[in-house]
Amino acid sequence: MKVIPLNDRVLVKRTEELQVTKGGIYIPDTAKEKPIEGRIIAVGSGKIADNGERVPLTVKPGDRVLFGKYAGTEIKVEGEEHLMMREDDILAILED
Amino acid sequence: MKVIPLNDRVLVKRTEELQVTKGGIYIPDTAKEKPIEGRIIAVGSGKIADNGERVPLTVKPGDRVLFGKYAGTEIKVEGEEHLMMREDDILAILED
Amino acid sequence: MKVIPLNDRVLVKRTEELQVTKGGIYIPDTAKEKPIEGRIIAVGSGKIADNGERVPLTVKPGDRVLFGKYAGTEIKVEGEEHLMMREDDILAILED
Amino acid sequence: MKVIPLNDRVLVKRTEELQVTKGGIYIPDTAKEKPIEGRIIAVGSGKIADNGERVPLTVKPGDRVLFGKYAGTEIKVEGEEHLMMREDDILAILED
Amino acid sequence: MKVIPLNDRVLVKRTEELQVTKGGIYIPDTAKEKPIEGRIIAVGSGKIADNGERVPLTVKPGDRVLFGKYAGTEIKVEGEEHLMMREDDILAILED
Amino acid sequence: MKVIPLNDRVLVKRTEELQVTKGGIYIPDTAKEKPIEGRIIAVGSGKIADNGERVPLTVKPGDRVLFGKYAGTEIKVEGEEHLMMREDDILAILED
Amino acid sequence: MKVIPLNDRVLVKRTEELQVTKGGIYIPDTAKEKPIEGRIIAVGSGKIADNGERVPLTVKPGDRVLFGKYAGTEIKVEGEEHLMMREDDILAILED
Repeated sequence: MKVIPLNDRVLVKRTEELQVTKGGIYIPDTAKEKPIEGRIIAVGSGKIADNGERVPLTVKPGDRVLFGKYAGTEIKVEGEEHLMMREDDILAILED
Repeated sequence: MKVIPLNDRVLVKRTEELQVTKGGIYIPDTAKEKPIEGRIIAVGSGKIADNGERVPLTVKPGDRVLFGKYAGTEIKVEGEEHLMMREDDILAILED
Repeated sequence: MKVIPLNDRVLVKRTEELQVTKGGIYIPDTAKEKPIEGRIIAVGSGKIADNGERVPLTVKPGDRVLFGKYAGTEIKVEGEEHLMMREDDILAILED
Repeated sequence: MKVIPLNDRVLVKRTEELQVTKGGIYIPDTAKEKPIEGRIIAVGSGKIADNGERVPLTVKPGDRVLFGKYAGTEIKVEGEEHLMMREDDILAILED
Repeated sequence: MKVIPLNDRVLVKRTEELQVTKGGIYIPDTAKEKPIEGRIIAVGSGKIADNGERVPLTVKPGDRVLFGKYAGTEIKVEGEEHLMMREDDILAILED
Repeated sequence: MKVIPLNDRVLVKRTEELQVTKGGIYIPDTAKEKPIEGRIIAVGSGKIADNGERVPLTVKPGDRVLFGKYAGTEIKVEGEEHLMMREDDILAILED
Repeated sequence: MKVIPLNDRVLVKRTEELQVTKGGIYIPDTAKEKPIEGRIIAVGSGKIADNGERVPLTVKPGDRVLFGKYAGTEIKVEGEEHLMMREDDILAILED
């Protein structure tokens, strides 16, 4: 099954592990929300600007990205958890 | 009866089954809202942009789509439940 | 008396019956708000776009339409109840 | 004294009587807010559009109009109660 | 001291007396907020439109105006109370 | 150290004294918030309009200005308290 | 690892020390929120304007900047704490 995000939405596969203690309990680092890392799987064709033209997205499939902890909606694609979010929820692209 | 959605609205027929236990009780998977699958039955002629021109919709009748759990308004067409929502409530198009 | 709705407003006559039990008590079908059916009696000359031009409405007098349960303001025209609402409150046009 | 409403504002004289019982107590018809009838006394020169041009109003002095129950601000002109409101608070023009 | 309001702001000198009873207690007329009368003392050079051009104000120094009871910020100019408000807070110009 | 405000922000040095009684207790004049006086120290290069062009600010360094009591963020420049605010928080320019 | 902020976002490294007493307890100076100092590490390619064109950012890598205390999201880059924020959260550029 192929998922084609609509307009300015992107499909992301989370890659960062949750931080757990040895005892298995999740410990939040600080009160501030931390960004999460993922990889772009699919992107929409872009948002429609005020003049009616479509503006292509900046991210592309394969990009490693950072996004806020509570960004997006969970969706299962071929049995695996993904996140569907708007490009504006992406904070940054990561390069090695 | 033919339903013609207005402007940027679309008519959707939900296809995903609700998740119930054997005992018949609905069990939410996580606290996060999960998208639901459906098929586009009819689409509006598009939203009117700031310059007064109509921007056609991206989805078309027959498309398999994902949308948020609480998107849209229920409507009965020829005895069957459908959903009327704005195209912006559609998260993605699904292809095999 | 003739009612001429202003700009993007329309005058609608509700046609759907309220659902009552034999005992006369109204029973809501589900928690979700259901659309109501009506007929367009009169339409405004359209909303003024950002460039100062008037965009004509999509619906026209005589159209059978669906709208949300709480849309519009009640108004009595020649002793009969009507609803005055914005075109954006109209969900769809119905055709046979 | 002449009152010249500013921009998209209009001066209205209410004409509809309040509904009172014989015992003098006001009885609201339904929970829904009902529109009130009035006559346009004076109109502003129009709202300034995004391109900086002034868009003239649709209503004109002498028009019989409908507006929401809580629209506008009360103002006394030569000892008589009037209402000052924005044109967007006007629901419809009435013709005989 | 000369006060030059910025952009779409105006400087107003209130002229209407507060309504007090003989016993000195203020009695509001109705629950609805009543407009107050004043005179324009100085006006700004206008708001900057979306296209970057400045749109001159409609009111000018010397105009008698009406404004809402709670409009503006009090400011003392040469020992006298004035009000600084946006032109949009002005309801109407008064002429004799 | 030189502080260069970003876009439509300005750096202001407050000049009005706080009103205190002889006993040292601050007594608010009325419930209404009173504007405060200051001098513009530095200005940004202007806000970017919808067409992507930068609109220069109206105030300039050296201007005596009025602003609301709670406007801006306190910032220490070379040991002295200043305020960083948006130009829109400035109510008026004062001239002698 | 290189972090490339998206659109109008910037990556900042905080440089100002937290104010602590000798006893190690943090003492807020006033109730008002104080700006914090940092250095720009990386900037996005700019926000997309209403006409669909990208507007480059004003700040550039290496700039010393001021921002509000609660601006941005914390992010660890090569083991060190950084902040990811929108350019609009930047109050000013600092020069010596």
